Amino acid sequence: MNDNSVTQPVSDELVQRFSQIVGTAHALTDEGDIAPYVHEERDLFSGRTRLVLRPKTVDEVSQIMKLANETRTPIVPQGGNTGLVGGQSPRSEAEVLLSLSRMNAIRDVDVAGRTLIAEAGVILQHVQEAADEAGLMFPLSLGSEGSCQIGGNLSSNAGGTGVLAYGNSRELCLGVEAVLPSGEIYHGLRRLKKDNRGYDLRDLLIGSEGTLAVLTAAVLKLSPKPAGREVAYVGLASPEAALNLLKLAEARAGTQLTAFELMPRIGMEFTIRHTQGARDPLEAPHQWYVLMEISSSRSAEDARATMEAVLEAAFEAGDVDDAAIAQSLADAKAFWRMREELSWAQKPEGGSIKHDVSVPVALVPQFLAEAGLAVLKAIPGARIVSFGHMGDGNIHYNISQPVGADKEMFLARWGEMNDIVHGIVAGLGGSFSAEHGIGQLKRAELAKNKAGIELELMHRIKKAFDPYSILNPGKLL
Amino acid sequence: MNDNSVTQPVSDELVQRFSQIVGTAHALTDEGDIAPYVHEERDLFSGRTRLVLRPKTVDEVSQIMKLANETRTPIVPQGGNTGLVGGQSPRSEAEVLLSLSRMNAIRDVDVAGRTLIAEAGVILQHVQEAADEAGLMFPLSLGSEGSCQIGGNLSSNAGGTGVLAYGNSRELCLGVEAVLPSGEIYHGLRRLKKDNRGYDLRDLLIGSEGTLAVLTAAVLKLSPKPAGREVAYVGLASPEAALNLLKLAEARAGTQLTAFELMPRIGMEFTIRHTQGARDPLEAPHQWYVLMEISSSRSAEDARATMEAVLEAAFEAGDVDDAAIAQSLADAKAFWRMREELSWAQKPEGGSIKHDVSVPVALVPQFLAEAGLAVLKAIPGARIVSFGHMGDGNIHYNISQPVGADKEMFLARWGEMNDIVHGIVAGLGGSFSAEHGIGQLKRAELAKNKAGIELELMHRIKKAFDPYSILNPGKLL
Repeated sequence: MNDNSVTQPVSDELVQRFSQIVGTAHALTDEGDIAPYVHEERDLFSGRTRLVLRPKTVDEVSQIMKLANETRTPIVPQGGNTGLVGGQSPRSEAEVLLSLSRMNAIRDVDVAGRTLIAEAGVILQHVQEAADEAGLMFPLSLGSEGSCQIGGNLSSNAGGTGVLAYGNSRELCLGVEAVLPSGEIYHGLRRLKKDNRGYDLRDLLIGSEGTLAVLTAAVLKLSPKPAGREVAYVGLASPEAALNLLKLAEARAGTQLTAFELMPRIGMEFTIRHTQGARDPLEAPHQWYVLMEISSSRSAEDARATMEAVLEAAFEAGDVDDAAIAQSLADAKAFWRMREELSWAQKPEGGSIKHDVSVPVALVPQFLAEAGLAVLKAIPGARIVSFGHMGDGNIHYNISQPVGADKEMFLARWGEMNDIVHGIVAGLGGSFSAEHGIGQLKRAELAKNKAGIELELMHRIKKAFDPYSILNPGKLL
Repeated sequence: MNDNSVTQPVSDELVQRFSQIVGTAHALTDEGDIAPYVHEERDLFSGRTRLVLRPKTVDEVSQIMKLANETRTPIVPQGGNTGLVGGQSPRSEAEVLLSLSRMNAIRDVDVAGRTLIAEAGVILQHVQEAADEAGLMFPLSLGSEGSCQIGGNLSSNAGGTGVLAYGNSRELCLGVEAVLPSGEIYHGLRRLKKDNRGYDLRDLLIGSEGTLAVLTAAVLKLSPKPAGREVAYVGLASPEAALNLLKLAEARAGTQLTAFELMPRIGMEFTIRHTQGARDPLEAPHQWYVLMEISSSRSAEDARATMEAVLEAAFEAGDVDDAAIAQSLADAKAFWRMREELSWAQKPEGGSIKHDVSVPVALVPQFLAEAGLAVLKAIPGARIVSFGHMGDGNIHYNISQPVGADKEMFLARWGEMNDIVHGIVAGLGGSFSAEHGIGQLKRAELAKNKAGIELELMHRIKKAFDPYSILNPGKLL
């Protein structure tokens, strides 16, 4: 409905006019130069474009959008190109790719106010490092943090492993600067904890996947660094046991429980098989694992004491079968690596049908039980790698093909598996897109799932911001 | 611009049609019955209406809105009628008042998932009590909690004293149910911590002051009850000293610092003078006071130890001149009462020109210094009662008339004082409406302050939701 009907490749004349805004050195037209911007890591979307623009300033972005608006040229904003739903991929030579990667200045670090102003193109890890240098912490953390950019994080309301204690990207941002499709600049770089002046435009722009405006900078909330942090690798029999452990940890540690990640045995096996140096931190195998992190604002000893108290109580309650507490920073890193490599370790095992779902936390075990039965009934031998942020009710419900199955034939059942898994999720009041967003991948699903007034309102909002649908057309809506 | 041009009183025929939807017993037309709904406690707005509708169900609300939409009848939604900016007051007999107070069911309490579903008309205190009975806590807390309703709290994104640790109303809500101006129902009662399915409609509706939709129910986040809670009443020399104490408390107590309220000596004097049983918890007078609360998820002893450590360090640093820690629940209540009565104790002192501003926390002392000089220069003898949620950078900057001054003449300078105070706030990157909203009171100010694309976007959003401008016209925009 809001899809843009422009299909003609951008003309030579327009390529030239756009290029003049950023300077020819920063307007890429060579296929080789363009390749890294249109190649998407899961190979689900093959992007195409004639032109990649790399502006340095918000004024250049404004000029680009003005010209695009006048000439009805579709613009696809892109950060670190790490999105998993094709939101950042241009679909044809009619679309111009707008890379924010040169807008990579950290404009301000305010230690007393605990805020940092980053331009959209700052790599997440660089934000983390700048916070660290200031004696503070930026708690957003995800697998691609070495290459994803803060503008993309906010555009997709990125989650990750820190959500449990610190919230999603939306909760970590106090204000944004953005360029509208018209080229007008929204100056919203506010550093206020309370501000009730009208509608919440900030939270509307965050998570809108570049369809309403181009985010160019943001005020990010920093947190005090914990004085101590402990990581444990826990073996358990079932998701029910993991839920009991979670409740126990929340009761004892409160907001100091800073990560609670669930992993199945098969995921661990994939990682050990395909990742150099990976090893099981526990002696015997277990059906399920939890990576649990507890932080303390007081001291390392305090974090350790809380971790030990939680594990002791869980052992006594019979919920935990074995557990190892990291004895060094190297241990902690190795534990976390087992979790992080899980995403990549599925690739060598053949086709993988992926879901990014959430349900109310207390229903995670029920979801896993119901979905497991249904999936194995449909595809006997399928290997279910369901892992993720259990503390947020967010499970990456991935299905690896049966050993020896035909990859293409297996992947052809993606839609069928979606229907099964998302059907169960819907029945539990859950979401078929917990943290990755909609992009191109789940656009049809959104249209199906949000039929009625909710989708209609989203279309009306899109039109209110972008009447000619020049901003990231064919994404989200 | 979005103001509704309807000025004709609602016709007898329409009164009858609307009344049939809720039943005549719940359609008030008698002036005496209507009075409590149109009287506003600060006497700033004299509301008028011919009809108060008191629906019991979301379907009745839907039918009311459908009829209003067909007949272009302006509807003013109202909760507990405690708003401070006239957002809940009908302006003429052309407008129908929609009271949500009979929609007062708590639909669900989920202890494991720590959520509660309340209808819009549930009184805040009843939500707190229901959470308490379930062994949990709903941390939203404000002066009017005995009569304000959760629908109004969300519509105005209410703040209060718990924001420091738990966030504004927006952060305490996972999902909402709402009726659109068309009568269509938005079913968004989600209980998910992560959900990235398109634009953030929830946060757009929260804080929209009943201008986009009628909130009918919400999923509220509950928190574990602290195991211990300590309250201290602290005397200090200056806002700078209070800021130092805040930093110290944040560093030591982290998220366990659950309240940090600033009060000036003159406010304390007003309270003692006008509140029966109120007394100064400290022996000697101090220029400034802080009410500080520290909670612990572990134990009462732990909370006490942290409180003592914070105060000890602050004494050593020379930031605190005297402090009393509550020795009993009665003490704690008495301390809190000194803070709560402050709002009312200004009334007997004559005219009061009020502001509800926020600035970045670290700039609170600078704001108070600059504003104090400017106000006293304009009105020598004015008594500045600047108090509030310092931990959020939110100050209720109230100015009581000089002793013996003419009240009317003093109040006539409201606009001039606004210009002075809000000008300084703007210069510090602050907000002229931190937590009370816009309503009728600050509508002109919003139009002036947000000139340009931001206000234009708000108007477009209003139009996208409410094309005929029948919902709370003349408020906010």
